[in-house]
Amino acid sequence: MNDSIEAPAPGSRRPGGRTARTRAAVRDAVLTGLAEHGYPALTVEYVAEHSGVHKTTLYRRWGDVEGMVADALDLAGEDAWTAPDTGSLAGDLRALAREVVEGFGDPVRAAAPTAFVGAAFQSPRAAEALHSFYGERFRRCEEVVARAVARGEASAATDAGAVVRAVSAPLFLRLFVTREPVDGALADQAADAVLAAVAAGVYTGRDEAADGTGRASAEG
Amino acid sequence: MNDSIEAPAPGSRRPGGRTARTRAAVRDAVLTGLAEHGYPALTVEYVAEHSGVHKTTLYRRWGDVEGMVADALDLAGEDAWTAPDTGSLAGDLRALAREVVEGFGDPVRAAAPTAFVGAAFQSPRAAEALHSFYGERFRRCEEVVARAVARGEASAATDAGAVVRAVSAPLFLRLFVTREPVDGALADQAADAVLAAVAAGVYTGRDEAADGTGRASAEG
Repeated sequence: MNDSIEAPAPGSRRPGGRTARTRAAVRDAVLTGLAEHGYPALTVEYVAEHSGVHKTTLYRRWGDVEGMVADALDLAGEDAWTAPDTGSLAGDLRALAREVVEGFGDPVRAAAPTAFVGAAFQSPRAAEALHSFYGERFRRCEEVVARAVARGEASAATDAGAVVRAVSAPLFLRLFVTREPVDGALADQAADAVLAAVAAGVYTGRDEAADGTGRASAEG
Repeated sequence: MNDSIEAPAPGSRRPGGRTARTRAAVRDAVLTGLAEHGYPALTVEYVAEHSGVHKTTLYRRWGDVEGMVADALDLAGEDAWTAPDTGSLAGDLRALAREVVEGFGDPVRAAAPTAFVGAAFQSPRAAEALHSFYGERFRRCEEVVARAVARGEASAATDAGAVVRAVSAPLFLRLFVTREPVDGALADQAADAVLAAVAAGVYTGRDEAADGTGRASAEG
């Protein structure tokens, strides 16, 4: 439907304009293709057919399939998602973990994000886009630790990035490595484990450990 | 070199015999191919050329590339690996975490196992083999929790499977999802966090949580 869309001059992009619509159409086609066939089977022909954007335009603006996948991830990262705010660190960590279960536990909802994770094994540009996407996601998650510090629930020295990664890590391990099911009880267990480690001060010592000599730990 | 090897009759396989050598040759070719080109580029022709096993034999014994990848993983799982035994739960958990960093932190050593994880996104049989491989690996890891229970370092009700998965999870998250570097300090942090959660009793409550109503947690 958008065969003749031109590459925009710098500064000419308007949110909600024709460029944004084309980009979203390509993103939708990439998501559908990834979800249905996976990265190795995704072709420029497929994206052209499902987006209505001409192949010539696709090649000119995105270069190749790698560029389209990376841009779809960039676009996904431009949403307004914010971390849950339940009033306690315990509640926020559980809510974060449960979002992972809800997002990846349902096969239909999980298909496209799972395919993005899989594409990163094949494509360096997809890996870089995935790195950026999750880096930004976890930065937004760190807000739950900042609020906990403000409430006196955690030390100001807490490594917020490590905390929020640790909450979802046991779920991602089961989804993508051991290939085991995840559920709400596992989400709560992951969140509660991190909460206990925060309370024990485990996440405040990373800087001191950087010299490789270890640090005061929760041993014993 | 093994063009005429026949499919063995049931019960005819001898460890170290011709069948085992053929299987190892195919496994080596699969590992090399995965490490160098990734799963989507792996072909029967490639395996035939690099293993010296005739294509006809490959098709008859393994069916297709999926079967060869799955068998290579099965074979990898038949090693004699056992979990570290340092004398304390703290030491064992850190040693487990550091093994992940050592195995995946070096690009050359990491290439084949990383490709196995990636192949599981494309191939249901690879996913099943990966599930079996890591299921068995983590079962062996549970020995560190059993020893800790025997030493009185952990409750006999501790969910050993959850504990050993939680130790490596933050590392696998960074390797395969956020695509961030891992190091020994991160390994120690992951191990110490799990140790603190074990001490807090977080990993003893999973059964009670199975009804979805939550359980006594480390909140507050």
